[in-house]
Amino acid sequence: MIKYPSGNKSKSYVPQQQSYGKRGMSLEHELNETNDYYLQLDRAVIFKKPTPVQIVNVDYPNRASAKIVEAYFKTPSTTDYNGVYRGRAIDFEAKECSSKTSFPLSSIHSHQLLHLKRVCHHGAIGFVIIRFTKLGETFLVDALALLQQANGPKKSIPYLWFKDNAWLIPNTLYPSVDYLKIIDKIYFQEEL
Amino acid sequence: MIKYPSGNKSKSYVPQQQSYGKRGMSLEHELNETNDYYLQLDRAVIFKKPTPVQIVNVDYPNRASAKIVEAYFKTPSTTDYNGVYRGRAIDFEAKECSSKTSFPLSSIHSHQLLHLKRVCHHGAIGFVIIRFTKLGETFLVDALALLQQANGPKKSIPYLWFKDNAWLIPNTLYPSVDYLKIIDKIYFQEEL
Repeated sequence: MIKYPSGNKSKSYVPQQQSYGKRGMSLEHELNETNDYYLQLDRAVIFKKPTPVQIVNVDYPNRASAKIVEAYFKTPSTTDYNGVYRGRAIDFEAKECSSKTSFPLSSIHSHQLLHLKRVCHHGAIGFVIIRFTKLGETFLVDALALLQQANGPKKSIPYLWFKDNAWLIPNTLYPSVDYLKIIDKIYFQEEL
Repeated sequence: MIKYPSGNKSKSYVPQQQSYGKRGMSLEHELNETNDYYLQLDRAVIFKKPTPVQIVNVDYPNRASAKIVEAYFKTPSTTDYNGVYRGRAIDFEAKECSSKTSFPLSSIHSHQLLHLKRVCHHGAIGFVIIRFTKLGETFLVDALALLQQANGPKKSIPYLWFKDNAWLIPNTLYPSVDYLKIIDKIYFQEEL
């Protein structure tokens, strides 16, 4: 058996991995960059919420600094992203999916689905951005369409369902997840 | 000198402290309760964002639990509260003020003022809830009116300005900070 020197199994031998932008950068990171881009251009004000943490113990070594020394992650009761765009409240969750064939519904908390249902009911634009990481495809799914699937008997949604019922967000360079283009089209009836 | 048994200097001797509800409960706590009340009644979906924390180090003693052992507070880049009500995005900050005569502008971060300006520009209802804790009075101030003051030369806003330019939120029992009543009146032109 040949022992490769470390790093020799380079991924650059696999050409299709170059076909879409910024592979390896997480969806969260790309969305933060995209939201920052929208903010700089004054197109929308959309932020990721901080990770909810239960703080138990804080050290104050001096007046200026506080160090949290004991804290725990909490289950989020809302979605991760929200803000305002063209006079409407925007609310969404983003998920990466490593399967090529289906999206497991267990990867979205039931609180988050309930939250999406509620905000839509009150007039927000609610959706989920789902990236099939191995396919390099990122879809925007309307929250109510996803909820309908989540209320069904199945535990996952086939990839093909997304092809027919969700909107593919084109892979672009900057911003890398230009989801407002899709929002313009489906919620404001504009041509892409 | 008479030594009182501990606890004898009871605050119940000061009648005016009974004149408004739930004294001693923090504004944040009361707002969380109020938002929860609105959520249960399906009137609005408004949440406090988690405190932003920079997580540096996490211990995984076993598969089930993760303990954050080093983290630091971050300066918030947005306001603390947001959500959706009657089809509009809601965005606000809440502050307690211990002075009886003026509200120091230094107690709101400049990022937060900028954030309020931005969300209002994009169509959100933006405001600040300020409680003069020693007076037991809680005001709702429109963000743009507050911004105008913040852009002036003064470092604080006199209490009397709030009397004339902000809306007093009545002290009620449940919910204790019924600010949507004020929102209905000033942003939806309804009678109180």
